[in-house]
Amino acid sequence: MAEYTLRPVGRVESALTDRAAAPRQPDEGAPDAWLVFDDRYAPALDGLVPGTDVLLFTWLDRADRETLAVRPRGDATRPVTGVFATRAPDRPNPIGLHTVHILAVAGARVHVRNLEALDGTPILDVKPILTPDR
Amino acid sequence: MAEYTLRPVGRVESALTDRAAAPRQPDEGAPDAWLVFDDRYAPALDGLVPGTDVLLFTWLDRADRETLAVRPRGDATRPVTGVFATRAPDRPNPIGLHTVHILAVAGARVHVRNLEALDGTPILDVKPILTPDR
Repeated sequence: MAEYTLRPVGRVESALTDRAAAPRQPDEGAPDAWLVFDDRYAPALDGLVPGTDVLLFTWLDRADRETLAVRPRGDATRPVTGVFATRAPDRPNPIGLHTVHILAVAGARVHVRNLEALDGTPILDVKPILTPDR
Repeated sequence: MAEYTLRPVGRVESALTDRAAAPRQPDEGAPDAWLVFDDRYAPALDGLVPGTDVLLFTWLDRADRETLAVRPRGDATRPVTGVFATRAPDRPNPIGLHTVHILAVAGARVHVRNLEALDGTPILDVKPILTPDR
């Protein structure tokens, strides 16, 4: 099958630097963080509103792409499960999906609440959360 | 910034073949479809359960990656908006996110309800929807 090239549009700026210590989910102690976009993508941010939630897509660049099955959350008591049935970061295309609350937008920088991504994580995309009236 | 290579894990098999005629959202007449995974990824599917909803990530390979702002849904009466504040397919990294209901799993093929992706669309990833008890 054809391959495709991801071109990151920015990076996460966060106090989280150690994968082993990182929270697995945002409600497990993740800090606020900055999404720092390359200046050329500033026009794509027009319309993001502080106080709203959006979907953030990242590339989990420290993940192992050969892993196809895991024990969820590294718990030895849980059965081995295919990675497509888990949120494990190790997977063939390690795309991270995060729901983040926008605290502020300052030029090409966006401040968000409780992000469990590591410092330096490449940003791929941002999308609104669909509501019934869209 | 460094670039990364996506390796699709399968393709959508659907009656939808024309982008102009495709529904924009699954509740706008999208047909049932098959997710056809490469056999080598079958172990990653272990744990997917018919009757449940999952998140499907695709690569919108017919999108224009240079577009940074659009009128949402092509509606000339709506203001120009940055693509990160819309669900437009045209965007720097055109990742499609779809919530799909699993009808059946048959080997490395997964039958899903109401998918608005075109026939042949590359599949990147599948993730469970997080629930409070995970």
